Amino acid sequence: MVKNFVEKLRTAIKQNNSLLCVGLDPDPMKFSDHFEGLSTDVESALTRWGRGIIEQTHDLGCCYKPNIAFYEQFGPPGLQALLNTVAAIPANVPILLDAKRGDIGSTAAAYARMAFEIVGADAVTVNPYLGQDSIAPFLEYPGKTVFVLCYTSNASAKQIQQFGPVGGLDLFEHIVQEAQSWGSAEQIAFVVGATQPEALARFRTLAPKHWVLAPGVGAQGGDLQQTLSSGLTPDQAGLIVPVSRGIIYAADPRTTAAELRT
Amino acid sequence: MVKNFVEKLRTAIKQNNSLLCVGLDPDPMKFSDHFEGLSTDVESALTRWGRGIIEQTHDLGCCYKPNIAFYEQFGPPGLQALLNTVAAIPANVPILLDAKRGDIGSTAAAYARMAFEIVGADAVTVNPYLGQDSIAPFLEYPGKTVFVLCYTSNASAKQIQQFGPVGGLDLFEHIVQEAQSWGSAEQIAFVVGATQPEALARFRTLAPKHWVLAPGVGAQGGDLQQTLSSGLTPDQAGLIVPVSRGIIYAADPRTTAAELRT
Repeated sequence: MVKNFVEKLRTAIKQNNSLLCVGLDPDPMKFSDHFEGLSTDVESALTRWGRGIIEQTHDLGCCYKPNIAFYEQFGPPGLQALLNTVAAIPANVPILLDAKRGDIGSTAAAYARMAFEIVGADAVTVNPYLGQDSIAPFLEYPGKTVFVLCYTSNASAKQIQQFGPVGGLDLFEHIVQEAQSWGSAEQIAFVVGATQPEALARFRTLAPKHWVLAPGVGAQGGDLQQTLSSGLTPDQAGLIVPVSRGIIYAADPRTTAAELRT
Repeated sequence: MVKNFVEKLRTAIKQNNSLLCVGLDPDPMKFSDHFEGLSTDVESALTRWGRGIIEQTHDLGCCYKPNIAFYEQFGPPGLQALLNTVAAIPANVPILLDAKRGDIGSTAAAYARMAFEIVGADAVTVNPYLGQDSIAPFLEYPGKTVFVLCYTSNASAKQIQQFGPVGGLDLFEHIVQEAQSWGSAEQIAFVVGATQPEALARFRTLAPKHWVLAPGVGAQGGDLQQTLSSGLTPDQAGLIVPVSRGIIYAADPRTTAAELRT
């Protein structure tokens, strides 16, 4: 029987001794020298790049997080490169598709089909702004997990996400409470930026058992030790830390990933 | 010089005497008999379908609204069909890509590139949950408009979008106020469901000049006359009404679109 996302994640964390989620964000606009041959064949250039990263990091992370935006920006060959890339990810390492989708029911069902049937992801990031019925179609797929945006790592996050308080809760806290009723503790996980240690601590109080993805360590200024102490559950689990450009555009991705893991 | 979205929209409204925005949502899971040959060639089947709809409606609407989810659910050939389809839209009718994207800056820039450079859209729907800096990259494209989700037409919308009040405003009203400062009145438009007449009226009070897309007329139960009276600006503009399955899966899309226009 195929393992569900959380089982795969727990196994990979143990096997690779790592909470590191390797982000795959092909960004040739900023890092053109990493993408040889892009001007003549987008699909091959992006695929070669992604497979190279996977080869160097396959035993160092607990998860891969391809960001579909960086593939879609090249149209159909970009999307094909994403499919080629995830096909190279070892079966024991789960795939979290970073897509941040959110739409009404029938449209959400189409996005779920894209994420789970076309890309073959084990989990996907989703935007909670449309509420429960926009997330439900993703949860019809057994064993899959959605990571609900809660408090993001960008500077403008607070404009909307800290709207409140209402009944003592800011919007992001309201979402943590609401979303826990949308599925099981293994189906619903959250995204809380490592740049927001107070929000992460508050999240952990409201959701003591749920998994959280904490982006923003490194380039965006989040502190790893503080993130671990605020976000980990008592059994030293419940938290994964994505790093994208810090690894994939490093001079030596393998060494950098190995260092970040510890 | 290329017209901006709002100029194109105003011209098409006048020319075709229509506030109707024709949604392109290829949904063969529900309407399989409309998509001949899908099992052997997805790209051709979707392209043929979309071109057929455009042929029948090109002079009856003010805008086309392809929903990228329904194309992405087929992977690269689906995305290619979207590109083939928009290429058949007459130059005088603007394209509003329904994508509801929202992500941090560098990722939002990749989505903007997808919407405006790959698809060639004139406008795009966006999700405001991440705040101003997640929308800014879309506004770097001159003449383009973003439609910011405000109050959506689905049943769960209220769980999140009516969170409040804070300072007399619910979340969706806070977003209407905040987002007006993110760009010019031609760059920032909104989505307010026709299923929510009170929210639409409240929106119009807070944003007397901005354009609004009001989905939910027809299948979802929104009343057209009430929507027009709540949403139109004093000059009988500022509002467009999307209809998707009501037209595209009608026995006679042309006749249905002509009827809905009046």
